[in-house]
Amino acid sequence: MKFSPLLAELINALTCLPGVGNKSAQRMAFHLLERNREGALSLSNVLHNAMEHITHCQRCRTFTEDEVCEICRHPEREASGLLCIVESPQDVLAIEQTLSYKGQYFVLMGHLSPIDGIGPDEIGLDKLESRLQEGRISEVILATNPTVEGEATAHYIAQLCANASVDASRIAHGVPVGGELEYIDGNTLTHAFSGRRKV
Amino acid sequence: MKFSPLLAELINALTCLPGVGNKSAQRMAFHLLERNREGALSLSNVLHNAMEHITHCQRCRTFTEDEVCEICRHPEREASGLLCIVESPQDVLAIEQTLSYKGQYFVLMGHLSPIDGIGPDEIGLDKLESRLQEGRISEVILATNPTVEGEATAHYIAQLCANASVDASRIAHGVPVGGELEYIDGNTLTHAFSGRRKV
Ligand SMILES: [Zn+2]
Ligand SMILES: [Zn+2]
Repeated sequence: MKFSPLLAELINALTCLPGVGNKSAQRMAFHLLERNREGALSLSNVLHNAMEHITHCQRCRTFTEDEVCEICRHPEREASGLLCIVESPQDVLAIEQTLSYKGQYFVLMGHLSPIDGIGPDEIGLDKLESRLQEGRISEVILATNPTVEGEATAHYIAQLCANASVDASRIAHGVPVGGELEYIDGNTLTHAFSGRRKV
Repeated sequence: MKFSPLLAELINALTCLPGVGNKSAQRMAFHLLERNREGALSLSNVLHNAMEHITHCQRCRTFTEDEVCEICRHPEREASGLLCIVESPQDVLAIEQTLSYKGQYFVLMGHLSPIDGIGPDEIGLDKLESRLQEGRISEVILATNPTVEGEATAHYIAQLCANASVDASRIAHGVPVGGELEYIDGNTLTHAFSGRRKV
């Protein structure tokens, strides 16, 4: 005997969540059924809406349900001429929480990884290139992760900047090598920004 | 700046899952958006169906979308006259996996806990009592957890059985098969000693 078909289906569906195996999925299913059916129904609704409506910002590629995200629509950020390149939307959040950066972002949604078939187009560098050509960016701040792939990606983008005669800098101080940007505290990130160097 | 409203809503909704804080919810949201929108949409559907249709078996109280669950509908199990009392549907699964028990179950969906306002009616003992009166149960096997609350609950149900002149037994507690004596807690060892049998 197993659980009832629908319950088994629920447990199985919950394992689509990262880090959730069969045992955790069971615990989650029972928790929701016993204690939080309303929360589960609202999660069901939000999941549906989010998967149907969240897409990528047409300017910076971050996740948003708008055509152009809130940050990209901000006139002062546009006027700053600064464009910070990050790997993920979580990195944007981490940097925003420092309150020390007031420019725009470009979110790669990954990094160059030829071995996985992720080349320049897959991380939007074609889009970035034409954006650099627009002539409204005065400095690109490379804030990819200090990992091998992040460094290679930063290096590649620095070349694009050179081709377009746009200054590029790399965040430097305080970010531990091998660390992931989204887990760095705000103070360290602020230092990393103010200590950026031309590349 | 935060995430877009819908993305923030998704992250927040995911924290209704037990053991999922804000950071894990972020990771889950991004994983689903980037890599498994189909899985997320099917989770959304199943969650909705499960919350709308899964209810309690009218005989044994376990979770099921049927009025009476598969085990309770089984004629040989009914004919066995055995009724095993457990705290949760996971306990039913664990016992079923042994393939050594062929009777019916009664699932308390908890245990007596007066301090939390969980009395006999909250764990279905009114229903159990009338089932004992039906006269078709020859033995009740008390398989609640060997915790203070589980023992108290077993004790309470043993009284109900005595009142209805139905035999009641408690599963044996002791050293798990394959377990090493030196790692077993004292309480379990005490049980193992007091429950010793002649060989
Ligand atoms: Zn944007
Ligand atoms: Zn049942």
